[in-house]
This record gives sequence, C-alpha cells and structure tokens, in this order.
Amino acid sequence: MTIENLTINKSFGGWHKQYSHHSTTLNCKMQFAIYLPPQASNGNKIPVLYWLSGLTCTDENFMQKSGALRIAAELGIAIVAPDTSPRGAEVADDEGYDLGQGASFYVNATQAPWNRHYQMYDYVVQELPKLIESTFPVSAKRAIAGHSMGGHGALTIAMLNPQRYSSVSAFSPISNPMNCPWGQRTFSAYLGKDKASWRNYDASALMQQATQFVPAKVDQGASDDFMIEQLKPEMLSAAAQVSGYPLDLTLHDGYDHSYYFISSFIEDHLRFHAEHFNK
Amino acid sequence: MTIENLTINKSFGGWHKQYSHHSTTLNCKMQFAIYLPPQASNGNKIPVLYWLSGLTCTDENFMQKSGALRIAAELGIAIVAPDTSPRGAEVADDEGYDLGQGASFYVNATQAPWNRHYQMYDYVVQELPKLIESTFPVSAKRAIAGHSMGGHGALTIAMLNPQRYSSVSAFSPISNPMNCPWGQRTFSAYLGKDKASWRNYDASALMQQATQFVPAKVDQGASDDFMIEQLKPEMLSAAAQVSGYPLDLTLHDGYDHSYYFISSFIEDHLRFHAEHFNK
Repeated sequence: MTIENLTINKSFGGWHKQYSHHSTTLNCKMQFAIYLPPQASNGNKIPVLYWLSGLTCTDENFMQKSGALRIAAELGIAIVAPDTSPRGAEVADDEGYDLGQGASFYVNATQAPWNRHYQMYDYVVQELPKLIESTFPVSAKRAIAGHSMGGHGALTIAMLNPQRYSSVSAFSPISNPMNCPWGQRTFSAYLGKDKASWRNYDASALMQQATQFVPAKVDQGASDDFMIEQLKPEMLSAAAQVSGYPLDLTLHDGYDHSYYFISSFIEDHLRFHAEHFNK
Repeated sequence: MTIENLTINKSFGGWHKQYSHHSTTLNCKMQFAIYLPPQASNGNKIPVLYWLSGLTCTDENFMQKSGALRIAAELGIAIVAPDTSPRGAEVADDEGYDLGQGASFYVNATQAPWNRHYQMYDYVVQELPKLIESTFPVSAKRAIAGHSMGGHGALTIAMLNPQRYSSVSAFSPISNPMNCPWGQRTFSAYLGKDKASWRNYDASALMQQATQFVPAKVDQGASDDFMIEQLKPEMLSAAAQVSGYPLDLTLHDGYDHSYYFISSFIEDHLRFHAEHFNK
C-alpha cells in the first residue's frame, strides 16, 4: 500500500496531514486526514480516535472546525478522519445530498450500482486502520466517534466490533435510521428492500440486543432542527434501557446541529476516550 | 440603523450570531458576525475584540476555525468579525484575489472606482463600533486583532487610534505593505501613485514614528510561505526598536500561514487582550 502526502500543517506542536491512497476495498482513490500530536514524535505508539463526519462533509470539516486538535495534543491521541464516501467520476452518485458521494452511511452496499464502491464499513473497520497502524507511530488502541451520519456510523461500528474499540462517542447521531427518512432512503438504495439486512446498521436495534458493551457517550442539541424527524435520540435511550447498555446520553438546551455545538463539547469526548484508553 | 439577524448558534454557553445591515460608510449592505459569551446575558457590559480577517475571507472564517469562542466564553469577551471588504454586484471588483472584494486592506480609498465603496477604515473604526455598542450589551473597551491583511489592518488602526483600543494583536501581518507586492498593488489602486499617502497605512512606518503606544502582540509562523516576500516581520521589529514600541513579536518554528497556526496560539492573544481590558 502506497500513500501520498498532500498537505502538512503544524498545529498545537503536532502535525495535521492529508493523504491520498488507492483503496482496494472501495475500488477508488481515497483521501484522509490525520492529526499526530507531539507525543507521536517521542518514539511511543499512541492511541487513535477515528472520526466519522456527517452528510456532505469530507476529511476536512472536523479537523478545521471542532477544536479537537488542542485536546488531542494535550492527551497524546492521534485523530484520523476519513472521507464520508468513495469519490470520483466513476463512483455512482445521486443528485440529493443524502445519497451517493458524501453520504455513504458507512455500510457495505449490496445493491447495484452502489455495491461496486460503497463498502465504507469494511474500509473504516479494516483497511483504514491497517493502513494507519502500518504507516504511523500508533498503537492498536482505537476509539471511534462521529457526527450525525457519522455518529450512526461510529455507534454501529463499535457495537459490531466491541473487541476493536475501547470506547465510542457521537454528536447528534442518526440513532434509528430504519425509522427515519434519511435512513430509509439510503438503506433502500444501498441494502435493498429486505429490512432484515437493515437491522445490522441500526444503532438502536443493535443497542437493544447488545451483550458486549463498548462504553458510549452521546451528546444531542435540544434545538437541533433534525432531532425529531431524523435523529430520534429517545430510541437509543430506550434501547439502552432494554439491554442495560452503559450509554451516557445528554440533551443540551439551546444547541443545534452545527460545529458550534460540537466544538463546545468535544473536549468532554476526547477526555472520555482517553480515560478508556488508559484502562 | 436597522440590522437583520441572519443566523444564531449556541456555542460554549453563549451565542454566535450573524447580521446584515446597510452601511452608510460603505454605501452597501454588509454582513458581520458577533460572539456574545455567557457573561453578556448577566446585565453587564462586556469588552469587545474586533477581528479583521485576511484576503479572501468573510465574517465566518475566524468564528468557525480559530477556536477563540471557548476562551472568549471563559474570559467574558465579545468578538466581532466584520467582512473583509464592501460586497455586492454594484461594488467595484477585480479578477485577482488580492484586489477588490475580499481584499479591502482596511483603508479609505481615494481613487476611482474604489472610493465609492472602499472606506473600510472608517467602517471598522467608526460605524461598526457605533452599531455594536448601541445594539449589544458591550462596553466601550475595545481591542483589535487580525490575520495577514487583517493583521495589517489591526496594527495600523490601533496605532492611528491609540485612545480607542486597549491592545492590539496580529498573526502573520503584512507588516510593511509599502514594500511588498500585495501592498504595492492594492495601495496603488486604492490610494494612487503618491506614496506619501501610503505611509499612514503602513504598520512599520507608523510604529517607527509612534509616540503613543497600544500594547502589541504579534505571532508569525517561521514556515509561512508568505513571510519573506509579503509579510516582512523583521521590518516591524526594526521599527519597534527605533521608537521603543512595546511590541511582543514571536517567531514560531514550523508553523505556516493557516488557521492551524492561528488556532494554536489564539488563546494567548485573548488572554493578552483580557489583561489589558482589566488594567
């Protein structure tokens, strides 16, 4: 696997870098960003937080807007931000912002034309960590987090792979995609009409039946315009109660769906992940 | 003066808001952003930091990327970010990114066609603070800061109005625009060929002859691609030595011209301004 360095910026004593590489899983060229804190230059292998962004985002949004690099530099955590879907002229797409490029929903598509490239679940779980861990001075300690569509991705990926992640967190996740317009539209396209195949990618369905627990922290803005129709945090809470899942879900008065919300509470998330890295 | 609220986002317990208003100084509609920290809701009048952005920016860049809101919320400082020039179809423009809209250089233009709208110096010094102080719960304690073209703007505006600002700071300012390509191109257009009129907008020229001192803090990335040809921090240092100006200028190894640099050191700037607000 060869990767190409695209950009490099010093930040908080560490380095933010963007790379491109050919993904064999996605069958296209992909871009990702990594923040390596100062501790990565000390000969130590440091843990990694994977961040999955929401609809329409790329590898850049979180790195530029979240304020996370400051805290990662203090705690000695690397952050990896993949793109939100396969990309390129040859990759299937849709005119809507909520399907196709920028909107992978982090699933393995089974339906044509999507199944040729849209294998983001395998990319995030397998190929990307393998590339990161063989290229950078990082350990196999991993956490995963995300926002909105990426919050859905983080929660489902952590629950399906409890041995691979020490903790998971989400801002404003799409908590029950089987039962919201965004999820129904994309799951129909990527996974087909059989809803049995949808359950494996539904955080509320997985949490309700969970028996192995990855500690989970979720923050949701109470003034988020998408909360009632698309995000449904109450379904995740109800599911956690059924299985006894260790879910710390907080509703924040006045906050919306934007990075103004994420940046306000990202420090809590990084400290939460650091605590579980150190257990 | 009527202003229209465009957006509102809760952040760090306070409120980020964007407004539009008709500027009589600029003779066009203008947009600005303000961050009001939680302390603005306590019936107190709080001090204001004005932030002037660089070439191609709008009111959004600093608010989204700097990480300053967290510290403003701690210290009880409002932040106001104007746009970087007059805007609109009727406003003179140029194909280059470094002249016309997005590139006012914060001067009062004297040459046609620019002089009809490009009066950003008066807008930033007079009209905008008047609007802010009559609309929001802020005091007349002001500081000013900026990046690149905005660092030039902040330094010149503070030195020309020492009674109006308690402190000034800049990241990577265009320190000697009379002697760099960016400054020579824009000053020729906005101010004409007579270089005597340029000196009033040149931070190094003003600092060298200063007799009233607004405390000044400047940070410059040593790996900034624009440093040698356009920014010339050494000219500002030399000028400060001549007049004995209290300039705290630091060169930072490895940092570039981006917000990855600004965000790394913005906390120091806000604490510097808070210290002088409290004197």
